[in-house]
Amino acid sequence: MLEDKNKKLTPLSELGEFGLIEHLSKNFKIKQKSTIKGVGDDAAVLDFENKKVVVSTDFLVEGVHFDLSYVPLKHLGYKAVVVNISDICAMNANPTHITVSIAISNRFTLEAVEELYSGMELAAKQYGVDIIGGDTSSSNKGLIISVTAIGEANETDITYRNGANSNDLLVVSGDLGGAYLGLQVLEREKEVFKVNPNNQPDLSGYSYIIERQLKPEARKDVVELLKALNVKPTSMIDISDGLSSEIIHICRQSKTGCNLYEEKIPLDPQSILTCEEFNIDSTTVALSGGEDYELLFTISQEDYPKIKANPNLTVIGYMADENEGINLVTRENTKIPITARGWNALKDD
Amino acid sequence: MLEDKNKKLTPLSELGEFGLIEHLSKNFKIKQKSTIKGVGDDAAVLDFENKKVVVSTDFLVEGVHFDLSYVPLKHLGYKAVVVNISDICAMNANPTHITVSIAISNRFTLEAVEELYSGMELAAKQYGVDIIGGDTSSSNKGLIISVTAIGEANETDITYRNGANSNDLLVVSGDLGGAYLGLQVLEREKEVFKVNPNNQPDLSGYSYIIERQLKPEARKDVVELLKALNVKPTSMIDISDGLSSEIIHICRQSKTGCNLYEEKIPLDPQSILTCEEFNIDSTTVALSGGEDYELLFTISQEDYPKIKANPNLTVIGYMADENEGINLVTRENTKIPITARGWNALKDD
Repeated sequence: MLEDKNKKLTPLSELGEFGLIEHLSKNFKIKQKSTIKGVGDDAAVLDFENKKVVVSTDFLVEGVHFDLSYVPLKHLGYKAVVVNISDICAMNANPTHITVSIAISNRFTLEAVEELYSGMELAAKQYGVDIIGGDTSSSNKGLIISVTAIGEANETDITYRNGANSNDLLVVSGDLGGAYLGLQVLEREKEVFKVNPNNQPDLSGYSYIIERQLKPEARKDVVELLKALNVKPTSMIDISDGLSSEIIHICRQSKTGCNLYEEKIPLDPQSILTCEEFNIDSTTVALSGGEDYELLFTISQEDYPKIKANPNLTVIGYMADENEGINLVTRENTKIPITARGWNALKDD
Repeated sequence: MLEDKNKKLTPLSELGEFGLIEHLSKNFKIKQKSTIKGVGDDAAVLDFENKKVVVSTDFLVEGVHFDLSYVPLKHLGYKAVVVNISDICAMNANPTHITVSIAISNRFTLEAVEELYSGMELAAKQYGVDIIGGDTSSSNKGLIISVTAIGEANETDITYRNGANSNDLLVVSGDLGGAYLGLQVLEREKEVFKVNPNNQPDLSGYSYIIERQLKPEARKDVVELLKALNVKPTSMIDISDGLSSEIIHICRQSKTGCNLYEEKIPLDPQSILTCEEFNIDSTTVALSGGEDYELLFTISQEDYPKIKANPNLTVIGYMADENEGINLVTRENTKIPITARGWNALKDD
């Protein structure tokens, strides 16, 4: 976890709860002018003047959302913040503040918690958000992280899941499936390690997809790009559970159907090669993999010229009447109904 | 947990994550006019116009903060919300919104989760706050609850921990120690039950202190009372960890000392009787017990006439210069330095 294995580590019990909060929060720098009070009182105090406030919250549970045997704590802290910022971006809003709470068992040392927080701080710095509060607690098993993110937006800019119209274009940022494939590689190396602990993991050739899994980014840049292009999406969601699940959310809430073109789904060459190596279908991975944290949105057809030349954005289909259903149009031009097969936290254990 | 033991219970895996969120959130009624969008998108959207926004967050972990062998799930849900609302009240602000997240192991059924949420909804209704979002996740052990509360206030009304001045009066609402004593009674009955499961617990005569433990209330009424009396506290905190710990927080942040009078500490007659029965010192219980969620605040001496006749408020001491230290003045008129001996989540396991 830490490079110098001989360094003396500090049990958390030496600090106590208040000592730990003080120790961890002393690095939190306040940058947002809307932060009146951050950590250190019963509550943080914010001032948004005439902007609207946007709030999102997420849990990350050890053994469910992450496996510490291959996720470095610093990356985990970074990711915990990013996945919440991604939700704020998916509202077409500007992330401004986060609270970070952790429950930890006694097997963690102060240095381990510092690693986790250093990742959170790095993400806060990267996205220009202030860490304004949180809670620390012991847990009787494992590590649980809860992050709440707050953002601001003009009322007219906020984009919901329910605004898509028939004939709108369906657009996705970046490429899909990489995060899931990165996880497959990490899990394979973990199994190899179990059999022979002297075997060094060989991750060369997988750096892109492993980074997609371990250090995902929220597409704040896409929100800014859309503003610069003067495009207001009619609906938007971030891809945390997989493309199929997110398309269904938009269609259900907007009361539309959708035709998604298999051949249009953007994939990185490394993802395609890894699919071949693992003998899995790349479309299935894109539809159900999840954790890519790309933005999926719909735009009016008249906005197409504004986005068509942009390498960050791909039109992958169009919205249809509700009674047409939600379909994948395959490379062989057959229509298959899309069903949600995304990550389901409650079904698999 | 539920009264009809023969009722068919529903495993959570039947619903899946989205089904569970949909099921649980359908009862969340929107009442605050500032709620533009609640549950159902990537984030909630709020509008506070020219008010300031106040945010607080807390974790409740099974086996650390609660024991399901004697805490009914509905009470637990109620308490999880109340402890966060209490933090907003401690800023002299008006609680308006909460997000509620849970991580649960598969031993819980849908009906159990419904019980928990019914308590959360009851608290939301009681305090007039909207439930605007949250997250559900599986956990590999036990139940973890994370609540984030949001409130609003005029900038001039917000009360921090750092505003106390030398010679200010130290005031507490309600009475202290009851919640801790209620816990002692519940733990004793649990031990009795372990020895003889046919023994019905005898809780008569302890109803007040058990309610203080199982169903605490946030003193929103005291915030409103102070407004009505035209008293703005110079500093304020809620008593979650125990009187001594909270006094130390105010003194450290305000850079003051304090003299607390033992004889002035308000105790309920049932608390005093229970202390005698358990042979514990009532002052120790008030100082270190915690979980009473009363408000502790300081006021300027000139505001004394406005509060002195109020049965909800007790002056228990006064603030002093920092170099005088933080002291308990005993009934025998000796000064003893106060040290924090409140609940410490990280030291005891």
